[in-house]
Amino acid sequence: MTTPAIAAADWGTTRLRLWLLDAQGNVVAERRGDDGMTSAREKGFSTVLEDHLAALGAPDTLPVVICGMAGARQGWLEAPYVDVPATLAEVLRGAARVDDARRDIRIVPGMAQRLAEAPDVMRGEETQLAGAKLAGRGRHLVCMPGTHSKWVRVEDGGVAGFGTWPTGELYSVLAAHSILRHSLGDRPASVAADNLHFRRWCETALENGGDVSSRLFSIRAAGLLQGLGPDDAAACLSGLLIGGEIASARRRHEAGKEPIILITSGALGVLYSAALGLAGLEIQPVDADEAVRAGLFEAANHNGMIAGGTTA
Amino acid sequence: MTTPAIAAADWGTTRLRLWLLDAQGNVVAERRGDDGMTSAREKGFSTVLEDHLAALGAPDTLPVVICGMAGARQGWLEAPYVDVPATLAEVLRGAARVDDARRDIRIVPGMAQRLAEAPDVMRGEETQLAGAKLAGRGRHLVCMPGTHSKWVRVEDGGVAGFGTWPTGELYSVLAAHSILRHSLGDRPASVAADNLHFRRWCETALENGGDVSSRLFSIRAAGLLQGLGPDDAAACLSGLLIGGEIASARRRHEAGKEPIILITSGALGVLYSAALGLAGLEIQPVDADEAVRAGLFEAANHNGMIAGGTTA
Repeated sequence: MTTPAIAAADWGTTRLRLWLLDAQGNVVAERRGDDGMTSAREKGFSTVLEDHLAALGAPDTLPVVICGMAGARQGWLEAPYVDVPATLAEVLRGAARVDDARRDIRIVPGMAQRLAEAPDVMRGEETQLAGAKLAGRGRHLVCMPGTHSKWVRVEDGGVAGFGTWPTGELYSVLAAHSILRHSLGDRPASVAADNLHFRRWCETALENGGDVSSRLFSIRAAGLLQGLGPDDAAACLSGLLIGGEIASARRRHEAGKEPIILITSGALGVLYSAALGLAGLEIQPVDADEAVRAGLFEAANHNGMIAGGTTA
Repeated sequence: MTTPAIAAADWGTTRLRLWLLDAQGNVVAERRGDDGMTSAREKGFSTVLEDHLAALGAPDTLPVVICGMAGARQGWLEAPYVDVPATLAEVLRGAARVDDARRDIRIVPGMAQRLAEAPDVMRGEETQLAGAKLAGRGRHLVCMPGTHSKWVRVEDGGVAGFGTWPTGELYSVLAAHSILRHSLGDRPASVAADNLHFRRWCETALENGGDVSSRLFSIRAAGLLQGLGPDDAAACLSGLLIGGEIASARRRHEAGKEPIILITSGALGVLYSAALGLAGLEIQPVDADEAVRAGLFEAANHNGMIAGGTTA
């Protein structure tokens, strides 16, 4: 195989994704694991990482750049937050170095918004943002859907502010632990973006400006009174929560005419594209996997980790 | 003891409350149990009820009037919903009779709102409403806080429409199963209405028109960035959810200048009183226990269950 120049890892709470990249940032090899921060705390971060590197046949001296929850206080090594407003270059340059490792390992810091009325944090998304190749000038509004969806206001290459909507977490917690478990059943089918219930409930939430809690119980009642089945109930809940997120975020971040940069991939990207369309918003899609890889490669370059690379 | 004329039971999902009342509706004896609908389904509703009646020394022929989830499809005997709009007298008169019982046992029906865009159901609250002794003329907006808070629009003695906000359930599910469990800890203190965090987050939610999901993650971030402790995090979550409910409900039900009828009791009543005050709404408090008892007594009278009582 081509000689790798760097290993890049997106290490979240529940998942690890690892790539070997050449000196131009092209993928040489890839690996995914379920040993996110939570399980790595038990096995040891170094052990988990070295096992995955060995499985990919990575050389002993290959440097590793990491983003995500591995840099949290409960992670491998705390990479202290960079406060907004800040440029993405400032963030990438702040990578923390793991001292006792036999190879060069650095962890990209997260970002913090220390506002009394809207404190917020992110870890991992800042790297995706850096890799999304936004135009250096102008205002962008970026939507990054997920367990904890982030909406980020980017101005002239810097992060001006951001917010978190725990849409994915609300969905799974309500589906498993609330009265809606009776409506959704054990294994509802994955939601399709052209499901009429998804679209109708999304529109309702958009009209209600992000007021979601007033409609949650209606999903249960629609099962009792109108025979709504489990798959459609799942579509209602998904549409309601995603529509509510978009209504709320567009107001809070004063979305204008410019397209929303949607950084995502897979099925979730399809649902958000549909929902943003229902909201009358244009989108400019960016693949989340490519973005985080490009951001990690840029972080490696910024920190002089790639032989012959361009140090900023 | 005074001879009881009727036994009255509020039989919900998780709790049973039973009173023996005399022919004027005064309490002769009282009993509370944890054998709500869920556990009564296993033990048998009749067995559970007879055990409690025996413990109170009730005569074998004493009739029993019941409201709540015991009348649900999964309960003892389905008491089919009465659809809105309907008068409360119509609801009470619709009590279903348990056929195979050795005594006269009737279950008050719930109410259903069969609107395509806002289907909803209640069971138990209709009886509280009937017992709240609202003026027979005019418009009233009634707030009944709880696991599934109900807001009911009453017009000229009839229920015109209602909505459910699952505020209590959201609180417990998020506290136990979401990322906020790290913020609230295992046993946060019960929330005080004068807690500054409760008041501030309630005000934020009121300003945001019921948009709650945009602020949930901020509770976690305030712990990480501002050292917010578990008890105050619980106050934030409570204020956010209750404020969000009030903002949403007042808009949906077009709350005017008239006072909100607040049917509640205990600590929750104090929190809702404070939150409604922050929203600038006047309240007219009604004790929930007294209301449900009075409603059950009225149902017994409406169905001719009380010797010498007034049948409507």
